[in-house]
Order: sequence, then structure tokens, then C-alpha cells
Amino acid sequence: MGSPEVHGFQEESPEELDPLEQGLEDRVATEAEAEKPVVREQLAEPGGHEGAAEPAEHGRPDCSKLVLLSAVGSVFCCGLDFIYFIRHLTDDHKRESARMAEAIRSFVNTFIHFTKPIIVAVIGPAIWLGASILPLCDLVWANEKAWFQTPYTTFGQSPDGCSTVMFPKVMGGASANEMLLCGLKLKAQEVSGKGLVSWVFWPGTFIQDVMDRIKELTSSNPVLLEESNSLVHCNMSLELKQANERECEVLKKIWGL
Amino acid sequence: MGSPEVHGFQEESPEELDPLEQGLEDRVATEAEAEKPVVREQLAEPGGHEGAAEPAEHGRPDCSKLVLLSAVGSVFCCGLDFIYFIRHLTDDHKRESARMAEAIRSFVNTFIHFTKPIIVAVIGPAIWLGASILPLCDLVWANEKAWFQTPYTTFGQSPDGCSTVMFPKVMGGASANEMLLCGLKLKAQEVSGKGLVSWVFWPGTFIQDVMDRIKELTSSNPVLLEESNSLVHCNMSLELKQANERECEVLKKIWGL
Amino acid sequence: MGSPEVHGFQEESPEELDPLEQGLEDRVATEAEAEKPVVREQLAEPGGHEGAAEPAEHGRPDCSKLVLLSAVGSVFCCGLDFIYFIRHLTDDHKRESARMAEAIRSFVNTFIHFTKPIIVAVIGPAIWLGASILPLCDLVWANEKAWFQTPYTTFGQSPDGCSTVMFPKVMGGASANEMLLCGLKLKAQEVSGKGLVSWVFWPGTFIQDVMDRIKELTSSNPVLLEESNSLVHCNMSLELKQANERECEVLKKIWGL
Repeated sequence: MGSPEVHGFQEESPEELDPLEQGLEDRVATEAEAEKPVVREQLAEPGGHEGAAEPAEHGRPDCSKLVLLSAVGSVFCCGLDFIYFIRHLTDDHKRESARMAEAIRSFVNTFIHFTKPIIVAVIGPAIWLGASILPLCDLVWANEKAWFQTPYTTFGQSPDGCSTVMFPKVMGGASANEMLLCGLKLKAQEVSGKGLVSWVFWPGTFIQDVMDRIKELTSSNPVLLEESNSLVHCNMSLELKQANERECEVLKKIWGL
Repeated sequence: MGSPEVHGFQEESPEELDPLEQGLEDRVATEAEAEKPVVREQLAEPGGHEGAAEPAEHGRPDCSKLVLLSAVGSVFCCGLDFIYFIRHLTDDHKRESARMAEAIRSFVNTFIHFTKPIIVAVIGPAIWLGASILPLCDLVWANEKAWFQTPYTTFGQSPDGCSTVMFPKVMGGASANEMLLCGLKLKAQEVSGKGLVSWVFWPGTFIQDVMDRIKELTSSNPVLLEESNSLVHCNMSLELKQANERECEVLKKIWGL
Repeated sequence: MGSPEVHGFQEESPEELDPLEQGLEDRVATEAEAEKPVVREQLAEPGGHEGAAEPAEHGRPDCSKLVLLSAVGSVFCCGLDFIYFIRHLTDDHKRESARMAEAIRSFVNTFIHFTKPIIVAVIGPAIWLGASILPLCDLVWANEKAWFQTPYTTFGQSPDGCSTVMFPKVMGGASANEMLLCGLKLKAQEVSGKGLVSWVFWPGTFIQDVMDRIKELTSSNPVLLEESNSLVHCNMSLELKQANERECEVLKKIWGL
């Protein structure tokens, strides 16, 4: 498979990476034969999402079993780059709102329609879209020092990532609104108790533990993984697609105000 | 806005209210610009529900952002007044059953179709309809000394308030049935763990804490609050309306026996 | 009612049963007037499921109020007998796969369409189908020393018992996949926190406590129990039937490979 890359969600201070973290890329690629999602921390360019979470197409057969989304810094993912975004909105509200909403729509649909298991390793803060997409993933593992927040209304935004449908399903409507309307910040253990995170690892051995569990998972029959995954997803894909459409329509409307 | 009133769900011993509790009404009205739901502890009159949880119509524009449902006594809400109800059933089972079922149907539909966020501050016991409607509200805050119980079968009633659909969604079917079939009584911390309550406040500062959080919420853009709220709700309103119809049909049938 | 029987899910070592456990059968039958499900620990014969969880038809009116599924050994239920199954697959993959998938389909549909409350008392390990069917039951009580595991992919199987729909509903998708994809083994207290089990009893008094609670439940109006139960179920029966079909199709496909 040559030297496939697994880019993290975030590269806050690449120069500060310790060797273990640096090693993550190669090992996921070679041991897990994972696909190669390229999801940047901040979707600075509306078009920048296109390769996100999609398998690279290099004209070779796709022999991967699952996708691991992680980060090589201390932050997992902070969603949209508001500064870029607000600057562009100033120029041409209507056109930019539509472009940005379309970028998010397409990004989120990629998660909805993805056929292989997506495993997320949340090493640090997961904010806005970085938190809202978690219920669209199949296994959500978190570093004990990670935290989760979706302060949409505080920043004049409406929820995205199908969180208006999936957060209530996962944790009940009231807890979902504590996050979506009130912007409540929660620790890894707290969101684990609410079902958003399925496993909390200790910081010291986070990367090693994640790799051990990935290795275990990839020993399973890939057909079985994909079939099981598809059984869980098929029940909700239409509902999620519609939720994504609705959320993006509201974002466009709010940005266009 | 003149002197809008926020009547609590319950006025158990109005004369015993301490000044802080008395102050709740004015402050919610003035600080939160909340709407003015008039929901009595017990729906003694079938027609008495009509103003319940609906914004007062005073011919002036509705500039409220959200609704706060609370109580000015030590009890939150005990649902139907069974004594009134059983007396009336004695006279004309069929007619009274239909009237009462219609009253509940309409009361619950008001919650289902309400477009602004409904925040509930559960100061004390929430029983039957007082507990079953909680998942239809958007944020559910509870006093640590509050408790929750829906002992329907024990009293010969069937569940209402869409609890047959929402309780399983929030806490899973088995826990839902512990409450709906077995009448299990749960404390605030326990229902919080199950997702029915999203925040538990300490008794000593309950009212102050509720007001602080309301103040924070009302600093949000009202359009955003309503749009976000609508995104969460639109996915379920048809399902809830149908559940309400079914539950009221069963109540009518049971009362008519 | 003569001497109706309640066969446990499992009879690991019948000769080791203590008198208290032996007594369970009679008391459930007489005190709870429970129906008479005959669900074997292992569905060795595809046709063996036919009486499973269905009321015995003895030409007498059905006056039972609920069904209690339990076990008279130290194991609750381990689902399919893989040794029997793999042997038969060796002879005629296609025919046996279809027969076995049909047996599971029919077994699971019995749970989906059952009109009276099903109470489960999980005395010990609940594995594969023994765990996956739990969300199809109405009250799930567990011995504190019981544990729960669905290691499907490890054994080359895909999930059954509507677990691909119900596990995510009960505990959120990520926790569901920890069990369904990773085969995570959980203790009674842990699955209780996730909503799969609604009550955990201490080992020493498990049977007595179960019987006390059953006695309480059976003091309710049977019409009310059935109506309440039906309200909770009707919302999901179509979705569950479809999930069951999908899961059995995948099993057939995997077995036929």
C-alpha cells in the first residue's frame, strides 16, 4: 500500500509531537490498513472538505477495513474556522452562506453514507462540528483529558452534524439541549456516562491503547465488519440525510440574515 | 410588557412562600421575558387546560424567548385530580371519559407543537402527567430533593403525556417500564443519570441558580433559540402526535369500562 | 391452571440446583400465573424454537398476565449452539443457512409481537442471542453477578435479535458497537448504567426479590398491563420486524459463504 497517510483532525503544534505520536500515522496505516481521511481541524476553505473522511482514490483496490479519525496534537477538532468564515460573509453574504452550507452538507453526508466502521480517537478538545459528528461515528474513544462542547447559540450559530437528531437519541432531549442550546462543556467521563463516548482511556497510554484496540478490531473479517456496520446504519440514513438538509438550510438562513 | 405573570405548576401553600420564592414570578417575567403558561397543579376542570402552557393572548406582540415552567410551593405537579375525575365518571362514564381524554390530548399537543424552548424547573415531586410531560420539554432542571413517579397501573390508569414513546427513547424500554408499569419512584440524581433531568441543583440555591441560567439563556438570539429548538422537534412531532392520540384513546377506553 | 411449567432459559447443571431455585418454577407458575415459554439455552434444532416464548396452547383460556423468562442454573442463555450449527453447515450450507436464519427470524418475531409484558430475570451470563433479545423484553432484572456479551464478529457471526436497532436506541450507537463489533463484556451494574438492565438484585436474595416484584406486578389489572405494554410496543413493531428481516438475511449470507 505504499506509504498511505492518516492525517489527524488537528495539527496544532506538529513540531512538538513526541515520537510515539509521530509513530501513530504509520502504524494505523500499516497495521490497521485504515483508509486515509484528510479532515483538517478547521474547514477554512469551503471546498476543503471534499477529501474529508473519504477514502483516497489512487486507482488501487480498497483493502481497508475501517477508518481511524484522530489528531496528532493536543486538540481533536474545533469545526469551522469562524474568522475565515465571517470575513467571507462580509463580502457576499448570500453566495458565501450557500457555499459554506453546501460544504457542511457534503461533509456530513460523507459520514452518513460511509460503509466501513469509523473509529474516532478524541485526544483533546472536540468543539462544534468536532463534537457534533461523533454520534455519526461507530466507536468513539476519548482521552480522559479531552472535553466536549457545542456552544452554537453563544456564537450565533445553529447546530450541525445531525446533532439535532443524534444528540437527543444518544443522551435524551434535555441533556442534548444542555449542550446544543446552553453550550455546556463536558469532560470525557461525563459524555461517556451520557453515551456520546464509548470508552475513556488514560492520557499516559492513550495512543498505545487505541492502537491495541484497533489491532484487535482489524483481526475481524472485513465483510463481517462492513455488514454489521451497515445493519446499524441502514435504519437511520434517510432520517440523518433529512436532518443534515434541515440543519444546513437553517445555517444558510442565519448566515444570510 | 406591563406585569406579566408566570404562574407555577403548583401553589400548595402560597401563604408559606418565602420572599425569594415570591420573587420568582416577577423576575422570570421581567428578566427572561418568558411567556405566561398557566398550568395548574391539577387539571380539575377538563376545560381548565385551555390556557395551559399557551402564551397569553393579550393583543400585543409576542416578544418572549422561552417559557419557564416552575412551581411556587414545594410540589412541582401531580397531574390529574383523580377525586374530581372519579366523581364525574360516576355520573356519566362515556361523556366524561371522552371530555377528559380530549382535555389531556389538547394539553399534551400544546407541548408537542410549542415553538419556543420550554424550560422546566422541578422544585419538588413530579407525579403522573407532571413527570410524563418532562421529555416534551427542552431543558429539565430539578431540585436535588425533587422526586419523580408515574404509578399509572397502581391507580388503574394508563400512561399519558407521550411517555410510552418518550420514556423508552430517553432511558431505554426497560427503565421506562420500571416507571410506567411498576411505578418506580426515583430521585433527581437517579433520573438525571437516566436522562430525564438534565441538571440537578442544590435545594438552598435552587431558585437563584435557575434564574442565573435563565438569564444566560435569554442573552441568546431569540431567532436562533427558536430555530435550534425547531430542528430538534420537527423530527418527532408527527410520532408524538400519534402517540398522544393512542394514549388518549386507551385512557378513554379504560375510563369507559 | 393445572401445573403449568416455566422452563428456564438454561439448565446447565440441574442436579446442582438448590431447593430455592427449584422452587422458582412452581411459584412463578402459581403466583404470577405467568405464561409458559419454553426457550432452551441453545437452539440446537432449528425447529426447536417453535414453542419458544409462546404460550402453550392446551385448549384452555389464557388467563396469564405476564411472562417471566429466567433460568434454573447459573447461566441465563448463550444463544445458538455453534457446534451443532457448524456441523450442519458442513453438510449443506445453503439449505441449513436458510433453515437456521428462518428459525432465528421466527424466534425474534415472537418477542416483537408478544402482547403481554415479558419480564426477564438474568441469573448469570447472557451471551449472543441471550443478550441481544433483552431490549425486546419489557423489564430486565439482573443478578449482580450476571454478565453480558455479544461477541459476534469474534465468532464470525453478524448481530441478531434486532440488536443492530435496539442496542443503539438503548445505549447510543458507540456503546452499542463496543458490544456488537468489539464484543465488550459488561457486568450487570455496567449494563444497568447503559439502560440494558433496569434493576440489579444482589445474588443472595435474587430469586426471592424477583418473586416479590412479580407478585406486585401481577396485582395490577391485566387489561391495563397489556394496554400499557401495547402502547410502548406499537411504535416500534414495524421497525423491529424489518430489522429482524435484515439481520437474518445477513446471517444467511454469511453462513452461505
